[in-house]
Amino acid sequence: MSVTRRRLLGTGVLTAAGAAASAAGAARPAAATTAAQADVAIVGAGLAGLVAARRLVARGVSVIVLEARDRVGGRVYGLPLGNGSTSEGGAEFIGPTQDRIAALAAELGVRTFPTYNTGKNVYWRNGRRTLYATDGFLGAVPPDIGVVELKLAMTRLNAMARDFPVGEPWRHAQARELDADSFEGWAHRNSFTPSARFLLGALIHATMSIPSREVSMLYMLNYIASAGNESTPGTVERLIDTKGGAQETRFVDGSQEIPIRLAAALGDRVRLNAPVRRIAVDGAGVQVTADGITVTARRAVVAVPPALAGRIDHSPALPARRMQLTQRYPMGSVTKVVAVYPTPFWREDGLTGQVLSDSGPVDVTFDNSPPSGTPGILMGFISGSYARGLDAAPPERVRAEALESFVRYFGARAAAPTHFAAQRWDTEVWSGGGPVGYAPPGVLTDFGSALREPCGPIHWAGTETAGHWTGYMDGAVRSGERVAEEVGRAL
Amino acid sequence: MSVTRRRLLGTGVLTAAGAAASAAGAARPAAATTAAQADVAIVGAGLAGLVAARRLVARGVSVIVLEARDRVGGRVYGLPLGNGSTSEGGAEFIGPTQDRIAALAAELGVRTFPTYNTGKNVYWRNGRRTLYATDGFLGAVPPDIGVVELKLAMTRLNAMARDFPVGEPWRHAQARELDADSFEGWAHRNSFTPSARFLLGALIHATMSIPSREVSMLYMLNYIASAGNESTPGTVERLIDTKGGAQETRFVDGSQEIPIRLAAALGDRVRLNAPVRRIAVDGAGVQVTADGITVTARRAVVAVPPALAGRIDHSPALPARRMQLTQRYPMGSVTKVVAVYPTPFWREDGLTGQVLSDSGPVDVTFDNSPPSGTPGILMGFISGSYARGLDAAPPERVRAEALESFVRYFGARAAAPTHFAAQRWDTEVWSGGGPVGYAPPGVLTDFGSALREPCGPIHWAGTETAGHWTGYMDGAVRSGERVAEEVGRAL
Repeated sequence: MSVTRRRLLGTGVLTAAGAAASAAGAARPAAATTAAQADVAIVGAGLAGLVAARRLVARGVSVIVLEARDRVGGRVYGLPLGNGSTSEGGAEFIGPTQDRIAALAAELGVRTFPTYNTGKNVYWRNGRRTLYATDGFLGAVPPDIGVVELKLAMTRLNAMARDFPVGEPWRHAQARELDADSFEGWAHRNSFTPSARFLLGALIHATMSIPSREVSMLYMLNYIASAGNESTPGTVERLIDTKGGAQETRFVDGSQEIPIRLAAALGDRVRLNAPVRRIAVDGAGVQVTADGITVTARRAVVAVPPALAGRIDHSPALPARRMQLTQRYPMGSVTKVVAVYPTPFWREDGLTGQVLSDSGPVDVTFDNSPPSGTPGILMGFISGSYARGLDAAPPERVRAEALESFVRYFGARAAAPTHFAAQRWDTEVWSGGGPVGYAPPGVLTDFGSALREPCGPIHWAGTETAGHWTGYMDGAVRSGERVAEEVGRAL
Repeated sequence: MSVTRRRLLGTGVLTAAGAAASAAGAARPAAATTAAQADVAIVGAGLAGLVAARRLVARGVSVIVLEARDRVGGRVYGLPLGNGSTSEGGAEFIGPTQDRIAALAAELGVRTFPTYNTGKNVYWRNGRRTLYATDGFLGAVPPDIGVVELKLAMTRLNAMARDFPVGEPWRHAQARELDADSFEGWAHRNSFTPSARFLLGALIHATMSIPSREVSMLYMLNYIASAGNESTPGTVERLIDTKGGAQETRFVDGSQEIPIRLAAALGDRVRLNAPVRRIAVDGAGVQVTADGITVTARRAVVAVPPALAGRIDHSPALPARRMQLTQRYPMGSVTKVVAVYPTPFWREDGLTGQVLSDSGPVDVTFDNSPPSGTPGILMGFISGSYARGLDAAPPERVRAEALESFVRYFGARAAAPTHFAAQRWDTEVWSGGGPVGYAPPGVLTDFGSALREPCGPIHWAGTETAGHWTGYMDGAVRSGERVAEEVGRAL
């Protein structure tokens, strides 16, 4: 592995002191500050910022990408397993209609393979473990009136998400009414059995890692509608399914290959350990001040989630709508754990490795093994209140509780992995949570258009600003392409 | 007026350039940085920070107060009218059981007088103007089944707010259930007539300047319960009434007299134009870095709203619960306007100057005249979506629309004030909105205790952290007293 590659991975080349300062997220500015110039300064070397940079460079525009962390990729991250390899600790899957991430991966030569999906899934509810076939969300859960209710509700949601103004939910004819409600409020009025209510809540929990009472119904409808492309309307199924849905496919060597290859091609246009503190606009353009470097540019692209963008000082002040939006677009709460075993023993038991459960802390799992199937890797999500409840816990407790969940779903062999790792997004200063920033009730109607509307020479990107596949890697890529186009036109 | 006094008022002594930089909220750090030392560094010279400083100094503790603005007082601000005097542009009233602000005012020699409350109030609804007597919230609105429903709902709310764990709503036995709901959700299930629903919404709109769908039911119950003191339970009436309620009394020369006198007594312990950017904790204590000054101290008190506290960098990172709380405690949206007339002409018409209206932009008003009654001053709130809708409007449009509202309520004479001024809190970088930070559904149960829980040597104050009278000046004072006690014990 080259030094550059390790630098981009964020593993191996940092001194302990450097790593500690970076983990703290608030290293003191270097005494010496470099001055640099470019046409466009880009804040954030996640997928959105890197794609914007690549597109702008291809147009002959000069860019500098300023990244707070000691690695690129943002929420796309290969979690070191302690055995020399990594497993996806952040965004991981792609699926049908996610055309832009697929095209980018193909362009970069990053190969894909199907998510392991052979056998049955585990459904854990009220202390009882049942198995169900994988063709569709709970397609064959033992007959339960709740599943019938769920299907009806899904049909209703899909109908509401048709002809939806994807990416501009505030333009919906019933925007104000839909935005007054939480998804839980809607779900409780449209279902009566406890199991349907649980399963509808799980739609939010499994996709956004938050309790369904915290998210606006309008936001959720947009999320569903966005799970498609220009010619294919979004559906609930495409969000939640493995086969035919957003979890269908994985990347050989992990999703982090994409940002790493993007960054490698950009070379020293990408500056790590450079958290941006201030953006000043004057007649001539922008001055973007990061720890250790100040970039003078004609335009700036801020490619970080709204909650983090709100921490950057602006001179002059941003419009009130934009300022108040950044107070109202919190990050979800999520930890992702991976446990490594000599073999994927659950496969022998006829299991896919996929779980949906009403009991935490791990309540959704996947088989995260590499294409060869060796070693076997179980991945689990700890979401919403479960994640929050463990955010202050020591690593040993996270491990113990996560393995307890795995044992409950997969049996005693899950108790003793050879390696275990957890990526705790809530404690990451430069993410502030995960997987995505979302809108509580009332926010989209009053502030939504400020997500993307440029403020003078400052443009906004990131998966939260995307139309199709907002919240996903595909949305991040789309937002990077859109902002490059927007800035290119403006220059 | 002494230069010091004018300095604290924030009027008159700034150069135009200085004022512009300050308004932008992001003046470049001064090239020269002062190093200072104190036992306690306090962030924010609003009421909470100043009261904490006063209390600590009285205990023999050395303090330095770092204030981002060029004035003290935070959300307590005398808005210059252009005629040499000011009128309250922020927090203004006090009422029964607000014991701590009352004691402080008495101690400082700041006198009070009754809010003008003689005559009838104006109720504007569905384009119709009616008058009602002032004894109690809508005490005598023309008989309407909606008012009966409102009274029933208020009785229910008061009962729910009894024996409430004031300041610790997450300890309520039904906390999770109550926090799953918005106040609008509760109100719609507990009322059926449009007028009751409007009036219940107005409870939130008039007190917190936000649409009732955006605030948690649990938060609102705590807000009601907090409208009392250790021996007197809070009630809806004490929140919303003028006589007998939180709007009963005003300060001669305006509420800003209190922070000005507090700051004057603290002398050069208060540093203006010093926005805090970073708090670093090490074994020896804290280092608080502001533009132009770095303070080394044993403890820090952050006395600004959560949403603003979230913009300060921390090393090491704060716990995830605290970080995520600051993403979830947005500021309300409010503009306060004042119009000056030669006389309070509405008094001649038998009106108090108080309005409750279903039509904006101004939908709540008060008589803001000085004790003498000359000149006459009408004050109006532009709240929630009305404020948001005008946040980007030029000042002339705010003026025109506000005066249109005043004419609707008080007749043609309101059209031509001698002076007019507006305080647009949403555009204030160092407030981020107003009057107060609040909790959307789901936040208090998962994050509430992080409001006040110290993080190592960092303590939290501000009216948002208060038990009784959270959201009011009294709560700010209580929080300053509580944090001084907390820090005093810890030193």
